[in-house]
Amino acid sequence: MDFRSGGHVYGLHRVIEPEGSLPQAAQRLDNETGAYDNEIVIDVHTLNVDSASFHQIVGEVGRDEVAVAQRIRSIVAERGKMQNPVTGSGGMLLGEVRALGPNYEGPVEVNVGDKIATLVSLTLTPLDLDSVDKVYLDADQVDVTGTAYLWPSSPLVRMPDDMPERLALSALDVCGAPAQTKRLVEGAERVLVLGMGKSGMICAAAARDAMGDAGLVCGFDLRDDNLVAMKEAGIVDDYRCGNAKNPVEVLELAQEMASGELFDVVINTCNVSDTEMAAILPCKDRGKVYFFNMATSFAKAALGCEGVGKDVDLLIGNGYAHGHAQMTLDLVRKFDVVRERIEALLEA
Amino acid sequence: MDFRSGGHVYGLHRVIEPEGSLPQAAQRLDNETGAYDNEIVIDVHTLNVDSASFHQIVGEVGRDEVAVAQRIRSIVAERGKMQNPVTGSGGMLLGEVRALGPNYEGPVEVNVGDKIATLVSLTLTPLDLDSVDKVYLDADQVDVTGTAYLWPSSPLVRMPDDMPERLALSALDVCGAPAQTKRLVEGAERVLVLGMGKSGMICAAAARDAMGDAGLVCGFDLRDDNLVAMKEAGIVDDYRCGNAKNPVEVLELAQEMASGELFDVVINTCNVSDTEMAAILPCKDRGKVYFFNMATSFAKAALGCEGVGKDVDLLIGNGYAHGHAQMTLDLVRKFDVVRERIEALLEA
Ligand SMILES: NC(=O)c1ccc[n+]([C@@H]2O[C@H](COP(=O)([O-])OP(=O)(O)OC[C@H]3O[C@@H](n4cnc5c(N)ncnc54)[C@H](OP(=O)(O)O)[C@@H]3O)[C@@H](O)[C@H]2O)c1
Ligand SMILES: NC(=O)c1ccc[n+]([C@@H]2O[C@H](COP(=O)([O-])OP(=O)(O)OC[C@H]3O[C@@H](n4cnc5c(N)ncnc54)[C@H](OP(=O)(O)O)[C@@H]3O)[C@@H](O)[C@H]2O)c1
Repeated sequence: MDFRSGGHVYGLHRVIEPEGSLPQAAQRLDNETGAYDNEIVIDVHTLNVDSASFHQIVGEVGRDEVAVAQRIRSIVAERGKMQNPVTGSGGMLLGEVRALGPNYEGPVEVNVGDKIATLVSLTLTPLDLDSVDKVYLDADQVDVTGTAYLWPSSPLVRMPDDMPERLALSALDVCGAPAQTKRLVEGAERVLVLGMGKSGMICAAAARDAMGDAGLVCGFDLRDDNLVAMKEAGIVDDYRCGNAKNPVEVLELAQEMASGELFDVVINTCNVSDTEMAAILPCKDRGKVYFFNMATSFAKAALGCEGVGKDVDLLIGNGYAHGHAQMTLDLVRKFDVVRERIEALLEA
Repeated sequence: MDFRSGGHVYGLHRVIEPEGSLPQAAQRLDNETGAYDNEIVIDVHTLNVDSASFHQIVGEVGRDEVAVAQRIRSIVAERGKMQNPVTGSGGMLLGEVRALGPNYEGPVEVNVGDKIATLVSLTLTPLDLDSVDKVYLDADQVDVTGTAYLWPSSPLVRMPDDMPERLALSALDVCGAPAQTKRLVEGAERVLVLGMGKSGMICAAAARDAMGDAGLVCGFDLRDDNLVAMKEAGIVDDYRCGNAKNPVEVLELAQEMASGELFDVVINTCNVSDTEMAAILPCKDRGKVYFFNMATSFAKAALGCEGVGKDVDLLIGNGYAHGHAQMTLDLVRKFDVVRERIEALLEA
């Protein structure tokens, strides 16, 4: 394979318009030029389309496999990437490494033939589709034949061979959160996790793993099914059920669990809006609040925290951290209950 | 004065609807019931209406002092607080302490007769207006006769008597940022401040004050007037001009200033959208990015940072920190150039 020189570490060489923008903000990427010498070339097998995007497409063209396939082809043909023009969102892809540019220095070691998943959004991945081969209407997935290119700043992961693909993908989708959790709980005595879905459970496991038995790990969710299992397994010490849109109620229930005290770290993994204050109120003075929830409003967090005069650090959930993928897969391996409950969610 | 018991530390006792919400999220606050024993009562003299709110009102009723006064009275009568129903924003107030509830335990010591400003938004301050006495169409201010109540979690500050009121208010409006800057630069060697307006200048001064001469403090803004003055005064070591909406350009210019290196801390004090990546790219691995800019998008910061595979901490600019007001006023006192440039901005 021939490689071109002149590739940019952030993929600027693939941006067609607007000029000077980063690939994610670009209207259109160049998916036609062959590989640059700082890129990796991937035979794409499956696109995991972001749920919001997939539902928008189905709503637009109907529950029809051929029509959905056509719409996906037309988006990629137009933009050079699978970024839904209405929702703005992407997804991730599964594939096999076809070639490595001689100057590719990526975040993890990969070899030709490795099965990999991208941990960077499809919104910035140059993609060239030959065909869409199968549409899974209930799984937000499509099998495709095509080519993608990744430059060094794009995280990716070798797929594990000791767990089902869907389980691995679910865990990898949220792998930024447990990695940050592990750092945040250093020195902490009490941690509260709001939302006990996929990311909430892995974050609680990360907290328990890092803090040991001495740490207090508490959970909060609308429903108690995951919480009961997590408590039985000793990952959470205590939990309450309720609505995270009611901050004062959350504060009271949180204090009940912490013998009247507040928490050093609060991790918000809910998937709904208006839960900023439920994370802020239970946090102690100079504690840390970590927002993984993508429905978080910057202004509501900043102004709301000022409004209650709380001196706490407010962190935006960065989806990337060194070693985040392996660490997350290891937590799923180590804590059976997390694996079982995520598999139960996938079957539901 | 008689005081009622049963006041809540976060002011829930003043929320009429929706029940259970915090005062900021409330549709209507109770501004008629007299003081609770955990409140401070303020004779309100001036409302500093948020600029977006004031301009919306002028747009709606016209550039007419009487009409603006009427609109403000009707909003406060309806909501029990000066929260613009269209923009959702508030402002702050100036007044004099009329009375202190026996159980008021506020963040700073105040006495009856003290001139104070609130550091908490008017969007959560119960306010009862007797009259609107004067409207300053060009200053977004109105002089009023009225009463406001603050509970213990609402930050406030005694007005300094050694500087003009408008200068003090401008500095106090952004006082969260320098306080956080001082903490963030601990142990840092290189700090970059994006936006060199009011908050940018005070943040740069806070960084210089904390880091001493050994630290590298750099600035970036569209225009160079403040930057030139800040460099002459030795507060910034170097600067570049450009548009923070072009992240790759900012990265290149930032690296020029840091001899090819990246920055430990980047502080975004711009006042426009789409500047997230310009703050993220110049930040070094495991560095910290602080977003004070209220036009920051949570999703753009979280997903954009993942998209470039950067492992940095992303912080939301909390408007409150212990001692933030005094610290900010002290910086304005200590660094003449900051005072002069803010006064120049106020006269412009
Ligand atoms: N920052 C990043 O890089 C990144 C990456 C991936 C995902 N995310 C975000 O992370 C969040 C969680 O993802 P996930 O995969 O863990 O989702 P998930 O499995 O659906 O978990 C969310 C949990 O929150 C619960 N919940 C919903 N509304 C609640 C409420 N009002 N009060 C209390 N609990 C409530 C849900 O309960 P029910 O199931 O009963 O509704 C569920 O258990 C999402 O917002 C997603 O966008 C962020
Ligand atoms: N989080 C909080 O609690 C809180 C509280 C108060 C204020 N804030 C926010 O803090 C921000 C700054 O406030 P401020 O009072 O310091 O405002 P300011 O005095 O107007 O300063 C903003 C500076 O950014 C510059 N700028 C604008 N667009 C730029 C661009 N594209 N590239 C480079 N520089 C650019 C401006 O230059 P020009 O003047 O030439 O446009 C100005 O010098 C605002 O967004 C405000 O909402 C936050």
